[in-house]
Amino acid sequence: MNRPAVILLSGGLDSATALAIAAEQGFTPYALSFRYGQRHAAELRAARRTAELAGVARHVVADIDLRVFGGSALTDDIEVPKDSSDEEISSGIPVTYVPARNTIFLSFALAYAETIGAADVFTGVNAVDYSGYPDCRPEYLAAYEAMANLATKAGVEGDRPLRLHAPLIDLTKGEIIREGLRLGVDYAATSSCYDPDGDGRACARCDTCRLRLKGFAEAGVPDPAPYRSTPR
Amino acid sequence: MNRPAVILLSGGLDSATALAIAAEQGFTPYALSFRYGQRHAAELRAARRTAELAGVARHVVADIDLRVFGGSALTDDIEVPKDSSDEEISSGIPVTYVPARNTIFLSFALAYAETIGAADVFTGVNAVDYSGYPDCRPEYLAAYEAMANLATKAGVEGDRPLRLHAPLIDLTKGEIIREGLRLGVDYAATSSCYDPDGDGRACARCDTCRLRLKGFAEAGVPDPAPYRSTPR
Repeated sequence: MNRPAVILLSGGLDSATALAIAAEQGFTPYALSFRYGQRHAAELRAARRTAELAGVARHVVADIDLRVFGGSALTDDIEVPKDSSDEEISSGIPVTYVPARNTIFLSFALAYAETIGAADVFTGVNAVDYSGYPDCRPEYLAAYEAMANLATKAGVEGDRPLRLHAPLIDLTKGEIIREGLRLGVDYAATSSCYDPDGDGRACARCDTCRLRLKGFAEAGVPDPAPYRSTPR
Repeated sequence: MNRPAVILLSGGLDSATALAIAAEQGFTPYALSFRYGQRHAAELRAARRTAELAGVARHVVADIDLRVFGGSALTDDIEVPKDSSDEEISSGIPVTYVPARNTIFLSFALAYAETIGAADVFTGVNAVDYSGYPDCRPEYLAAYEAMANLATKAGVEGDRPLRLHAPLIDLTKGEIIREGLRLGVDYAATSSCYDPDGDGRACARCDTCRLRLKGFAEAGVPDPAPYRSTPR
């Protein structure tokens, strides 16, 4: 029987690719997404569709309300930055940073893993395009894994330590897309935009849209996802 | 101006004491509690009352639903153990263990701390009476602190590292109670029982009731909290 693994699934292209990699490595995927006071539900629809297409064993959507604290464009009413330069995108900590978001998401993944007896957690975090996010760096993930192995029943009584897999950590967006296409990921089902319209069509101008489009250009294929107008 | 600190406040006597210690150390306390699919609301009422009595700057109650995963007596319908022997209480991992609970709670505390610019988080965890919980051990807390300092803006850009305070970690229940009484904590407002009745009165028979009553006996004072019948 295949071993179970928990996959953090945001609805974006990175986590869809991480899910495909987990499945290729022989894990039975259990997907985990969050309803966390997002201003847009498009990414949850994309997560559900991606989980269906990948045939996951189960897809849990956990409710967490980060709005009780405030502090970021993705949960507050701060204006999402548009038309940033490449330098602006890659320097400093972005306004769209959500405090401790990955730490919270990984903690729920840990609870889920322990509940289903999984020793493996996959995340699509990536250090190349998101150098500004402290919780996307390899040293953070290593420290998280060390903590997790002290936190749980499995770490204390189990025979297999918990492993935190970040298969995209060193890949560029173009490399991620090429890997996903090789594994049959349908990127039309994914949604990366910080500011989609009511039909879930992407803006093509926010930082993640720009990184995504640059990635598809790098991979030499068109982005199959719906945009409000033809991307430049 | 006093520095802000986030205090995890469960409604039990340990976290009420940790809150009083934070205040005595000169921090402005911001309390954080959770509605996490508990079978009983008594502990949240106790947390609210304790926060009021301590005059915290703010008390946030975050909603998280650990029931989506299942896995413990506190969120599932497993029978809460009653009349355990002292050996049973202190050996192994209890059935009331919630997977990754402290990791999730601390992650929310981290988000809250970052949002209000706090570099200090207080938890009432205690390794003496809860040796069975992996996430109540000093080595777990040290690993969490190391991870947290890699996770956040403050850890990357800030001038003060995040400190995770566990002032009760090495104290017996009796010592905790004596310290709290010295600081004026009103333990009548706290609730520790895993199985309170509709009026919030404790059962006196579950593991935490027994630890609590043993602690008051050790401290040489009666427990002012309401019980369904006179505790043995």
